Amino acid sequence: MAEVDLASVRQAQQRISPHIHRTPIATSALLDQICGCRLFFKCENQQKVGAFKIRGAVNAVFSLTASEAGNGVATHSSGNHGAALARAAQMRGIGSFVVMPNNAPKVKKDAVAGYGASIRFCEATLQAREEMLQQVIEETSACFIHPYDDFRIVNGQGTAALELHEQVKDLDLLLAPVGGGGLLAGVAVATKALSPETQVMGVEPEQADDAHRSFRSGIRVTDHHPDTVADGLLTTLGILNFEIIRHSVDDILLVPESGIVEAMKLIWTRLKQVVEPSAAVPLAAVLAHGELFKGKKVGLILTGGNVDLDNLPW
Amino acid sequence: MAEVDLASVRQAQQRISPHIHRTPIATSALLDQICGCRLFFKCENQQKVGAFKIRGAVNAVFSLTASEAGNGVATHSSGNHGAALARAAQMRGIGSFVVMPNNAPKVKKDAVAGYGASIRFCEATLQAREEMLQQVIEETSACFIHPYDDFRIVNGQGTAALELHEQVKDLDLLLAPVGGGGLLAGVAVATKALSPETQVMGVEPEQADDAHRSFRSGIRVTDHHPDTVADGLLTTLGILNFEIIRHSVDDILLVPESGIVEAMKLIWTRLKQVVEPSAAVPLAAVLAHGELFKGKKVGLILTGGNVDLDNLPW
Repeated sequence: MAEVDLASVRQAQQRISPHIHRTPIATSALLDQICGCRLFFKCENQQKVGAFKIRGAVNAVFSLTASEAGNGVATHSSGNHGAALARAAQMRGIGSFVVMPNNAPKVKKDAVAGYGASIRFCEATLQAREEMLQQVIEETSACFIHPYDDFRIVNGQGTAALELHEQVKDLDLLLAPVGGGGLLAGVAVATKALSPETQVMGVEPEQADDAHRSFRSGIRVTDHHPDTVADGLLTTLGILNFEIIRHSVDDILLVPESGIVEAMKLIWTRLKQVVEPSAAVPLAAVLAHGELFKGKKVGLILTGGNVDLDNLPW
Repeated sequence: MAEVDLASVRQAQQRISPHIHRTPIATSALLDQICGCRLFFKCENQQKVGAFKIRGAVNAVFSLTASEAGNGVATHSSGNHGAALARAAQMRGIGSFVVMPNNAPKVKKDAVAGYGASIRFCEATLQAREEMLQQVIEETSACFIHPYDDFRIVNGQGTAALELHEQVKDLDLLLAPVGGGGLLAGVAVATKALSPETQVMGVEPEQADDAHRSFRSGIRVTDHHPDTVADGLLTTLGILNFEIIRHSVDDILLVPESGIVEAMKLIWTRLKQVVEPSAAVPLAAVLAHGELFKGKKVGLILTGGNVDLDNLPW
């Protein structure tokens, strides 16, 4: 078995399905009319911990041997992965340690704490995160679970696509946001095996376009200074994920900041779904690149719904 | 057949089901933990036009004979019934005329206009509404469909309870907000026939408590000066509805304004459902009257999701 293929994603699905929700599909006739295509939204905002990240985290935590799990798990995360890992550890009855940037949204800090993790705050740079994490692991001997660049995570996230293809047949396109690339990689591998006619596209904010640049040039960009309302998409594309994405993804589209906020409001008003800005990025692509989608059947992953209601982007 | 009984509600269900959504049930383990009971939310915020009102409106519009429908339909409404009647008329291919108070939320005015109704604005008093409506009907000969005090409307709204009892068995309690009382009346009749063990309770803002006072005194209160964030519950309990409610409803609970906003935020953050303030009133009752609900299985109707995102109550 390859490290990420349809069989490994199916194995992840078996492992995690007792612990997660099978999330519903939302549709809106009015939104379809606005966009000129048929849109099927996979509501991972209604997933446990409010984000798809629980899929990868549960797959990773429940893959560990008893001795690997004995000292708990640790990670760094701007939010949803931290909450997901803490919740997955709680499900298995082990400890968790989460390094978070001090500028993470309050709602995400509260969630991580609420699931019983020990939180350590650091400056909002990748270097500061990694140093703090190293220190935590030396102190605790916890098992590191990378937020996205890990095959167990990619296999777990890919289960969202397995479910979506069971729920909606014959999609012409499937859109997922790209941050570290774990979701997009898993979704692309599962889709190309299950439904090879479906085009898989990543979507990224123009102001956090490292995956787009990496995909176009064939060389993974690391000089990355993101500045976007989509706080879940600030990370740099992972090394393992880039290898999968360059071979399995059809394209990576960019969207402007204003389009993300507009799409978020449309999802709130038309679908009545509370989503965070990152989750609105695929619909922003449909609005910005309408010609690609006209008359098509399009799947979009609503990745999460953890938003601070006292600090909305409008 | 009585004017409102289980048979008439079932007949309404047959009539409207091709035109409306069967809405999902939302649950949250965390919310259950907070409240100490099991909560099942009927997501009428995801209904067509974003509110349960489409049920009654479609039932009424599709009950009309061709000659009754010929000059279109007319109503007065602070919002959701107007949108629903306009949409129902559009489905049947007839015209609609909606009298709205000029202080109705912009999102509701836009919705009514978007469904093709002719809107006439008036002052925000019942007298002004009724006078303007009278004038519209004289001009157009449209058929008046009362927003709530009409058996066709009550039968239509009752279908929400039919579905809920199919989706969730053995509810101990069922909670619905009360404005004009059409929903509560329909829900109570359907529930007492289908699931007599289930207690049916209406919930009302303390600052719009006419139904509570009417229920307690046995005399319909008309001296009513509501002032509440729950803009869907400003109307006075209807005459027909009061007769049904006093015989079929177990109690009417009151909730404070602050509790409505708190409940609304909990629904947004925990269920990821966009709801309007009126829809949060039943959960506010669970928070305010916890002792009634401990350990129980409770159904709550999330009545609508048409909220102005630029004017949230926090």
